[in-house]
Amino acid sequence: MQVNPIQLFDAESSTYTYILAAPGDPGAAIIDPVDRHWQRDLAHIERLGLRLTHVLETHAHADHVTSAGRLRALTGARACVPSGCGIPPAEVQLEDGDRIAFGAGEEIAVIHTPGHTAGSMCYLWRGNLFSGDTLLVDGCGRTDFQGGSASALYDSITRKLFTLDEATRVWPGHDYKGQSVTTIGWEKHHNARLAGRSREDFVALMGALNLPPPKLIDIAVPANRQLGLPHGM
Amino acid sequence: MQVNPIQLFDAESSTYTYILAAPGDPGAAIIDPVDRHWQRDLAHIERLGLRLTHVLETHAHADHVTSAGRLRALTGARACVPSGCGIPPAEVQLEDGDRIAFGAGEEIAVIHTPGHTAGSMCYLWRGNLFSGDTLLVDGCGRTDFQGGSASALYDSITRKLFTLDEATRVWPGHDYKGQSVTTIGWEKHHNARLAGRSREDFVALMGALNLPPPKLIDIAVPANRQLGLPHGM
Ligand SMILES: [Fe+2]
Ligand SMILES: [Fe+2]
Repeated sequence: MQVNPIQLFDAESSTYTYILAAPGDPGAAIIDPVDRHWQRDLAHIERLGLRLTHVLETHAHADHVTSAGRLRALTGARACVPSGCGIPPAEVQLEDGDRIAFGAGEEIAVIHTPGHTAGSMCYLWRGNLFSGDTLLVDGCGRTDFQGGSASALYDSITRKLFTLDEATRVWPGHDYKGQSVTTIGWEKHHNARLAGRSREDFVALMGALNLPPPKLIDIAVPANRQLGLPHGM
Repeated sequence: MQVNPIQLFDAESSTYTYILAAPGDPGAAIIDPVDRHWQRDLAHIERLGLRLTHVLETHAHADHVTSAGRLRALTGARACVPSGCGIPPAEVQLEDGDRIAFGAGEEIAVIHTPGHTAGSMCYLWRGNLFSGDTLLVDGCGRTDFQGGSASALYDSITRKLFTLDEATRVWPGHDYKGQSVTTIGWEKHHNARLAGRSREDFVALMGALNLPPPKLIDIAVPANRQLGLPHGM
């Protein structure tokens, strides 16, 4: 049965962090936690009576630093990261098709979705897709660094994500307009960058974006490859 | 079974808006929608495949203007407000103990919790308390205008809210620190303003806050008494 996650926001980088827990089950996982909010996030875990067992990253972020290493050190949670993101301190190096078990029978399915970065993964749990920077609300992640590829992103979204059940709720890694959640069906039919667009058109569109590099990229990517801590703790 | 709502945020007034819908049921209610976000909120309703049938206000807000009247006009939803808040255009004037039915068998219980304002109500749905400005995460609403009363707030929180199941999730009307949700149990045992404090202490504490009046109070309260629209539409 579909159960919404707890959605938390970092206003500086417009990043969403998610806490996953099933009703009546204290086992919890967190996705894409942000460094400066580690106390806030642990406070949520505590207030809700949860026990954190897994910390997941969708990719090695370029715009903020993760608190995964710190949360792992403080809770004993296992750090789970895409194998292709170059994050050696994480004990679980995920491959496409893997499943992460947590709580009393909960399961997260791992979907490799290269494009925003070569290693990016999405996570599927109880009808919820945690789409990182692959698919955003009426948008998608950029494809111009860290092995990004507009062509690969097009395939990941149209062949892997848009073939999920249309009612699947999509919880993005970022949003800049206060939008919280969308669905596969809506994005398939209405996403401004993807709906009705050929791969060729999409690649041209992404190639013409000409975005400035993320301000933090030279700090954030190396830090995130160590789970946000010196030497990965 | 506990089902999390969709939580939406207004960064200008730090107001949370909630969309309530049960899994697999298109019927939806919205609580405390904010004027400038009516398009965003309707977009969420649409993307999630929901149909809005009820718009609820926890009180006549002093810090932002509601979009209740506009959402009602655009969707045909019923406007449900506390009877003691002086909002005549709303067709449903709620009393303590009322129940609002929506969707296929969903029910919202109405709890009158005077203190932040004389008319303030909290709403309880599937193990979730929507606490307006009555109970906040590790805090509570101010009590110095609109018939506010620290003594009444103390009784509302300690006698009505703290007697709910401790696992009840509490979704506040505002938060200024990125905190999203708490529980009755945590607040009962740890809330900095209330835990272990006598009514007398609490009244003295609230009386000494000396907060400036909300900037928008002279605009927002009259507007909210008309559901945010000229003449309440
Ligand atoms: Fe990213
Ligand atoms: Fe208020």
